[in-house]
Amino acid sequence: MLLSMSRAFEDFPVGTRLVSSSWTVTAEEIIDFARKFDPQSFHLDAKSAEKTLLGGLTASGWHTGALSMRLFVDAMNVPGGMIGLGVDELKWPNAVRPGDELRVETEILSARRSKSRPGYGIIRIHNVTKNQRGEVVQSFMANAMLPVRGS
Amino acid sequence: MLLSMSRAFEDFPVGTRLVSSSWTVTAEEIIDFARKFDPQSFHLDAKSAEKTLLGGLTASGWHTGALSMRLFVDAMNVPGGMIGLGVDELKWPNAVRPGDELRVETEILSARRSKSRPGYGIIRIHNVTKNQRGEVVQSFMANAMLPVRGS
Repeated sequence: MLLSMSRAFEDFPVGTRLVSSSWTVTAEEIIDFARKFDPQSFHLDAKSAEKTLLGGLTASGWHTGALSMRLFVDAMNVPGGMIGLGVDELKWPNAVRPGDELRVETEILSARRSKSRPGYGIIRIHNVTKNQRGEVVQSFMANAMLPVRGS
Repeated sequence: MLLSMSRAFEDFPVGTRLVSSSWTVTAEEIIDFARKFDPQSFHLDAKSAEKTLLGGLTASGWHTGALSMRLFVDAMNVPGGMIGLGVDELKWPNAVRPGDELRVETEILSARRSKSRPGYGIIRIHNVTKNQRGEVVQSFMANAMLPVRGS
């Protein structure tokens, strides 16, 4: 029974749609990520962020990307792992602010077996991250390689 | 003197090239990032990573993206901040492994004043992250908005 719950390439035919669980973003984690990876005023400090174009503390786009990856990995649940081959049209149309509750919606756009690596398949995904009001905070297309069952 | 060192849109005409400082990646930070954002075996544990296609512990692509953002932000040195508008052709052609020393090479592909926001300019950049052997571990194109001087 446990084995049948382990997902692999075959479980994601074209047209498959998934919705992840949710993650509520805090000011503390926005600032912590920004200190390490994107030390700009609108990601670091609520007061000075108010004076910027973004009008308040917002998450780094790379933070939104990383949080979305976590929600996506958990939703896909592929123990053999997924290797990202590339991302296109990565956009952040709305800011992520403290208290926002994020979910990732995934659609499988294509799925084919790898020619060069027989034990693997390649899927093309459209990932959209939305906040609690249904506003899109991130979207992209990506190709990823994942194992076929039993390989 | 200090003011003249603050960079803004005008300091990045087409063809400008920058090379960032370097960052040496540790196994600990690869695992720490993966636990939070990309919990897959090849990013979490050296032993089990050896059995995967990647042949050992490797950084999440989103970790490479975040580290590259830090190197880029420090190299650009724009106190007014840069707001990312979108990323294209994000690729990870070689894995990032513990001990790798990363640098980001930036080229400004285009630069124009914003029509809708008079105090800002929009630059298109090509960012390439290389390791200590000169191998490309990440590349992308992106548009970013940044303030013009004195605005």
